[in-house]
Amino acid sequence: MPDRPITSHDVARLAGVSQSAVSRAFTPGASISAALHAKVKEAAARLGYQPNLLPRMMVQGRSGIVAVVIGGAYNPFHAATLEAFSRAIQTAGKRIMLVQAENDRALDEMVGELIGYRIDGVVSALSILSQEAADAISAHRIPVVTLNSGIITDYIHVVEIDNTSAGRAAADLMISRGATRLAYIGADSIASRARQAGFCAAVEDAGLPAALCLPGSLDHDGGLAAGREMLAAAVRPDGIFCVNDLTAIGVIDAFRLEGGLTIPGDAQIVGFDNIPASRWPGYNLTTIDQNVGRMAECAVERLDAASSDGSGQAICVDFTLLERGTTFP
Amino acid sequence: MPDRPITSHDVARLAGVSQSAVSRAFTPGASISAALHAKVKEAAARLGYQPNLLPRMMVQGRSGIVAVVIGGAYNPFHAATLEAFSRAIQTAGKRIMLVQAENDRALDEMVGELIGYRIDGVVSALSILSQEAADAISAHRIPVVTLNSGIITDYIHVVEIDNTSAGRAAADLMISRGATRLAYIGADSIASRARQAGFCAAVEDAGLPAALCLPGSLDHDGGLAAGREMLAAAVRPDGIFCVNDLTAIGVIDAFRLEGGLTIPGDAQIVGFDNIPASRWPGYNLTTIDQNVGRMAECAVERLDAASSDGSGQAICVDFTLLERGTTFP
Repeated sequence: MPDRPITSHDVARLAGVSQSAVSRAFTPGASISAALHAKVKEAAARLGYQPNLLPRMMVQGRSGIVAVVIGGAYNPFHAATLEAFSRAIQTAGKRIMLVQAENDRALDEMVGELIGYRIDGVVSALSILSQEAADAISAHRIPVVTLNSGIITDYIHVVEIDNTSAGRAAADLMISRGATRLAYIGADSIASRARQAGFCAAVEDAGLPAALCLPGSLDHDGGLAAGREMLAAAVRPDGIFCVNDLTAIGVIDAFRLEGGLTIPGDAQIVGFDNIPASRWPGYNLTTIDQNVGRMAECAVERLDAASSDGSGQAICVDFTLLERGTTFP
Repeated sequence: MPDRPITSHDVARLAGVSQSAVSRAFTPGASISAALHAKVKEAAARLGYQPNLLPRMMVQGRSGIVAVVIGGAYNPFHAATLEAFSRAIQTAGKRIMLVQAENDRALDEMVGELIGYRIDGVVSALSILSQEAADAISAHRIPVVTLNSGIITDYIHVVEIDNTSAGRAAADLMISRGATRLAYIGADSIASRARQAGFCAAVEDAGLPAALCLPGSLDHDGGLAAGREMLAAAVRPDGIFCVNDLTAIGVIDAFRLEGGLTIPGDAQIVGFDNIPASRWPGYNLTTIDQNVGRMAECAVERLDAASSDGSGQAICVDFTLLERGTTFP
């Protein structure tokens, strides 16, 4: 046995046929006699031969590979997003090239490099934040689908939920359960700004004092810090909406362990993303589910549709507000 | 602008040169005049052209792509493992093809399919459980590195920690802190069986009653169920080692929320993996860190070394026992 993957030449030698016969036997629709076909397939099976996919990729100018761009793994929501993307892409019969990037400028460079592999498109959990980055990515002329991003242009599509309505829904729920001092713990992202806008508008519509808005950092430490800041404030909020579940869990830990408060008696909390820890009995967190499975399906559908039409589109997926124990006693 | 990625022909047309000149300008070491080279590079930059990598992949029979095989995303440890793999592979200048598989038989089929992309090798977080699956994978003759797997054969390497010693370390720590009724909550895996063996041996060596061993399911629900079973037992364990942190957190929640117990006063708990939630102040869990960053580096180094030598090897990485608040009052 040679110390390398089996090639069509090895199969040809064993079958006693030409290399071209092996090639034809593995090309759908190619002209080859049934007897020759059977001979080649038997030799291939004995050797464990797999045809080289690269020639077909070269001829078609497409690889059947979709690049998936993700940020950090500290957040279980990113892991769930990646799993949903992977499932949708594998179900569509394509392969996944995984790319970790830190920001949208990095995304621009990476799309450029990935073109060399003749990828079918890019699905990105990273947002594209500036028109400049969007233009640079768009210039590569392959379809890109981002999640909850702000910018849509040629070749760049967005799959999103209605984040403004989600923010409204969180405020309306806590107000209906009796909260009067509302607060939002956010992050530096397009989605967070939309959630904050909807949340603050609903608080204003209810005739309540303006919501307190604090920055977070999307992780548990950011929630702890915001929780401590609220504990030290002159007027402590009693209805808190957080940009994600990790932040909400950090706020709960600060309020309970350091403030001696009870949830939802002293303060109601609503998170975002429905991560597994939000269902643990110690938290039982009311949260908003973005339906990432459906988002991923829409993203992959969009890549296929986009291959014949470059104009960018926005696709909106429904979110679900899941009421659990942090808003309802 | 054409509605497809830019090709070498587009660059040749704009630069007013032959397609072969474009090809030579992008082939390291190829013969081309400085003036012609500059002309091609300028046109390529204006068009955003990226050379097709597929011809080079075909000539070399290697793509520079490493396949990474992972299981479910429910466990934050898998996300951390994937991030460590991705970082090590990108640092080595290679690309990542991500594959989600459910079991080791699926791994065999996938390695076969991936050969068509002329991948450099496979890094798998899935174990290979049977010699039959190992033989089928080995027959494809590309290097495969698995984590904490039992089987080493031609082309199949293992990067692992000493799980038996890790089990011993967990028992020795809790016994030194006063535990006398030890228990292990495990899972159906090679790594779990090794941890259990080391744990039980240390309990026996200390002259204590044999450790109670219960099955878990690697998730929080499995920890809750095992915790409830221990709460209902005639003799309740006071020193519990868990196959992973999610299981340990489930046991803590059951003991505190349903049993009214305090940790570590009524029972000490040790987990495994050092996931972010183990550091949340509500848990502050003593755990064993597998050092996945180092494991990933070793796996990628092994892939490179393995390309010139098919014999399987085992590489052992040091673990770290991190003592926090669930063993030390």
